[in-house]
Amino acid sequence: MTAPSSTALPSRRVLVTGGGGFIGRHALPELVAHGWEVHAAGRSSLPADAAAGVVFHPCDLLAEGAAAQLVAAVRPTHLLHLAWNAVPGKFWTAPDNLDWVAASLRLYRAFAACGGTRAVLAGTCAEYDWSHGELSEATTPLAPHSLYGKAKNAFRTLAEDSAGTLGVEVAWGRIFFLYGSHEQPGRLVPDVITSLLAGTPALCSHGRQERDFLHVIDVARAFVALLDSDHTGPVNIASGMALPLSAVIGIIADLVGRPDLVRLGARPAPAGDPPRLAADIGVLRDRIGFRPQFDVASGLAQTVAWWRQRC
Amino acid sequence: MTAPSSTALPSRRVLVTGGGGFIGRHALPELVAHGWEVHAAGRSSLPADAAAGVVFHPCDLLAEGAAAQLVAAVRPTHLLHLAWNAVPGKFWTAPDNLDWVAASLRLYRAFAACGGTRAVLAGTCAEYDWSHGELSEATTPLAPHSLYGKAKNAFRTLAEDSAGTLGVEVAWGRIFFLYGSHEQPGRLVPDVITSLLAGTPALCSHGRQERDFLHVIDVARAFVALLDSDHTGPVNIASGMALPLSAVIGIIADLVGRPDLVRLGARPAPAGDPPRLAADIGVLRDRIGFRPQFDVASGLAQTVAWWRQRC
Repeated sequence: MTAPSSTALPSRRVLVTGGGGFIGRHALPELVAHGWEVHAAGRSSLPADAAAGVVFHPCDLLAEGAAAQLVAAVRPTHLLHLAWNAVPGKFWTAPDNLDWVAASLRLYRAFAACGGTRAVLAGTCAEYDWSHGELSEATTPLAPHSLYGKAKNAFRTLAEDSAGTLGVEVAWGRIFFLYGSHEQPGRLVPDVITSLLAGTPALCSHGRQERDFLHVIDVARAFVALLDSDHTGPVNIASGMALPLSAVIGIIADLVGRPDLVRLGARPAPAGDPPRLAADIGVLRDRIGFRPQFDVASGLAQTVAWWRQRC
Repeated sequence: MTAPSSTALPSRRVLVTGGGGFIGRHALPELVAHGWEVHAAGRSSLPADAAAGVVFHPCDLLAEGAAAQLVAAVRPTHLLHLAWNAVPGKFWTAPDNLDWVAASLRLYRAFAACGGTRAVLAGTCAEYDWSHGELSEATTPLAPHSLYGKAKNAFRTLAEDSAGTLGVEVAWGRIFFLYGSHEQPGRLVPDVITSLLAGTPALCSHGRQERDFLHVIDVARAFVALLDSDHTGPVNIASGMALPLSAVIGIIADLVGRPDLVRLGARPAPAGDPPRLAADIGVLRDRIGFRPQFDVASGLAQTVAWWRQRC
């Protein structure tokens, strides 16, 4: 697909950052299927199963001037900004969270200056005060503890507060816990699956922590639904059902057929690990009208099947 | 003065941004007097009375790549970052507050990456929740209402939270209300002085709002004292005495000799104008050991005398 002439700006041309990332690669085919003209930016070329019908723009958003050049080349009407540092275990405290804020502000400003009308930006449940177990857009205080949460919250505050002046709609999808095909090793679900498939013990913490997991395909679909909507402000992107990690691990173990290899309590939980992080999904369900394709059983079955083909 | 060879990094080489600005121009001679090797960056050349002994670097920090180039050229051990949008009446809501956050993050990251050890950054009393009249670093909640306050607060949060990882000390000077020679028209003190010196009525609001005013020379001296100290974290830069605006206006009117031209109540106060913004200056006085040169009477006398030479 080649980019059409920029003389007539179409009404639905979306620029997706992090197009080759965990969520982005699942969002691209969904956007194409929804009739968007899709332009995806990323540091490396798109995986084949995500590239069909998508115009790819190689771009390191952290490079000086990159965001402005990208926006000038694409002239998007809509922005889906997913790119950020997502290196497992590192992203919580990495100093390049500051660079991602700077790059995201430049991108957002360039998007607005170039006539963009609606931006959907990826936030995080880590913006909330985690001393509250039930996390609601309307009522839960924002008090991020990690540098990552502070960085996302800073970007959100500035984007939302300037949106009116800049003439841009801003929606902010707060991602909770996700899993699914193509997840990077170093995270809970792929590590448990690959350990059990290899016949080695899965060393876990106590497992009583309750978390809201949503399959990445549904996370991607929720972002596309949010882009298609006229909602502004924050939206929790989650399933609405918080499960103990031990239950998630148990489902995986049953799917693989190796519950004997699960070692709950073999590792300490991270310091300050909150007992419960549950998402209020009223806005996503009732305002956006989103319904997930997967529940945790079918989602984990898809994920285990995907890993079985690779291990 | 020419820059010394960069082979031996001196222990006290400071880069001042906004060197030609209202505070910067008063800070430069103070820094030179305190034995600093002073490098000042700004969009236009320095005023003659601020340039002596200072290495000037023409630089628009909002230009892509400018901050990194500046830091690479200077290789400062210390940073005094004063530059920001300060256009009277505009800076509270200007979208370029986002650009200043992005540029400040780039500058701070480049400074740390280049071996910088201590950064003193300019914050604002607008970071505080103004429903509290007494504003203290230790106890007053931060809840900025304006885009300007949110932008400064976002930059502070990210700089402070990453300081340990980056190996940089960060001190954050929260500026309250200031006045003095070289202030831009469009702000209270210069507008009242120039109106009265011209023999025209000074149209004012009710004047009961209590504010903490500090002469700009003392604001600049306080920043230099903060740079010379080992304090980290926020510090209110203020006098510790909140006065009604009517009292400030009254002192000016007496100095000019035209109290008959003051028109309190002739203009509405801005919407949401808080009744009292008083600064706790315990940290500045007791931790930094700072003492002002001017009280409000002598400070306004200096300011009126300066304007008399120009009107």
